[in-house]
Amino acid sequence: MWCQSCKEEYEEEDAGTCKECYEEASETEEELKREIDDLRSRLHFLRLPSPTLDAASAPHSDLLLHAIPSCSSSGAGGDSDAARTPDTPAVPAHRVILASRSPVFRAMLENEMEESRSGIIKIYDVSYDVLRAFVHYMYTADALLDEQMASDLLVLAEKYEVKHLKTYCEKFITSKVNNENAISHYAFAHRHSAKQLLEVSLSMLMDNMSTLADREEYKELVEKDPRLVVEIYEAYLNRQVNTAAGKDTDCSGRK
Amino acid sequence: MWCQSCKEEYEEEDAGTCKECYEEASETEEELKREIDDLRSRLHFLRLPSPTLDAASAPHSDLLLHAIPSCSSSGAGGDSDAARTPDTPAVPAHRVILASRSPVFRAMLENEMEESRSGIIKIYDVSYDVLRAFVHYMYTADALLDEQMASDLLVLAEKYEVKHLKTYCEKFITSKVNNENAISHYAFAHRHSAKQLLEVSLSMLMDNMSTLADREEYKELVEKDPRLVVEIYEAYLNRQVNTAAGKDTDCSGRK
Repeated sequence: MWCQSCKEEYEEEDAGTCKECYEEASETEEELKREIDDLRSRLHFLRLPSPTLDAASAPHSDLLLHAIPSCSSSGAGGDSDAARTPDTPAVPAHRVILASRSPVFRAMLENEMEESRSGIIKIYDVSYDVLRAFVHYMYTADALLDEQMASDLLVLAEKYEVKHLKTYCEKFITSKVNNENAISHYAFAHRHSAKQLLEVSLSMLMDNMSTLADREEYKELVEKDPRLVVEIYEAYLNRQVNTAAGKDTDCSGRK
Repeated sequence: MWCQSCKEEYEEEDAGTCKECYEEASETEEELKREIDDLRSRLHFLRLPSPTLDAASAPHSDLLLHAIPSCSSSGAGGDSDAARTPDTPAVPAHRVILASRSPVFRAMLENEMEESRSGIIKIYDVSYDVLRAFVHYMYTADALLDEQMASDLLVLAEKYEVKHLKTYCEKFITSKVNNENAISHYAFAHRHSAKQLLEVSLSMLMDNMSTLADREEYKELVEKDPRLVVEIYEAYLNRQVNTAAGKDTDCSGRK
């Protein structure tokens, strides 16, 4: 017999589909590809020129965002902002865009708050590069990520309730979880309610329980937040019980 | 043999693919579907709330668009605008959005033109409903079309160089071409350089040449723009010559 797809000869037991299903599958693939083309072109239309590339690329902008990195914090209360004024340029933006992407910005800009009156928003504990990437994402739904950038953007996305960006970053970080970084990702996921990342890193930890307690990060976590360590053990025990119950069912047919 | 897709039995000569290709195709389909989900979610993120629903949905707007329908034209020169002032409400919009979607608006708003200073743009020869649909598209990449709306929006899209919308409308109109409307669509496509629509309607006309000259629209077109009618005959003759040449080649093997 001949395969209509790869044109190679094959044995009867290697048969995949009948002709009808083959043709149907080809049609489905064509349809899906057409839909992808259509979605891409609409996406291209809806992307906005990012105002972060240079000041000239942001005509009609009615906002200026200032990154105030945490390392330059003076630690003093009251008017400590002056001490924290950064020497990086401001990132221009548009009220309509930020308000439509983030309920936090919306509330800030649609009520008579200081930021709305002045058109100046200070974004605390963030570097200039992360702020630029954040604003860029608001206009384009795109970001160039590495693990550090993804973590920093996730924190900012959580603070300003930009769900789409948070999911985007969480997916990226989750794809990078390994035995080496599972503890720190687990703690990070806990801090920022990143459910998918939490599950994957916890599962990675449970797969390597025998070496867990030897790790430096483990000892740090016991010091800093022992409840999180307790949760690892509880999850592990729970899984053991379930596995045992599963085996019991397998053996006796019905439990 | 059994089809792995529909689970039905089939004969050897009805074989579609081998097992390997079947599995590959299933994987491809899954991948394409994942891509569609991802594109859809990015599209959802990039869509902006349309300012055309009600005035309250357009905070931070810095433009007002007025539809000036052609039927209310006074025909007088000079300050005829006053006579053409419409009684429909203005459509609010944002400079950053219109400028990013249309090079015509961009030029208008980034240079010191009257519209840029006043924040008021008059859109001539268009109804309020079409203007609203036009602005809605600029924010959402979506429009509810019928043939009339698609034609009106195509004209506006051409005027303001919103390519994506023009293509979107042209596709819709092209899908509606039939023997009844082919002449008017052909003339419309000519006026607005709609290449795809031109090809499809011309092809429809050539398939029904024997009845072409009986049609009322044909007689009108001969009156109004005889050159377009000449082009139909030229295309028809050209096709006849090519078909004959093709037949010759078929008969003699090589010409």
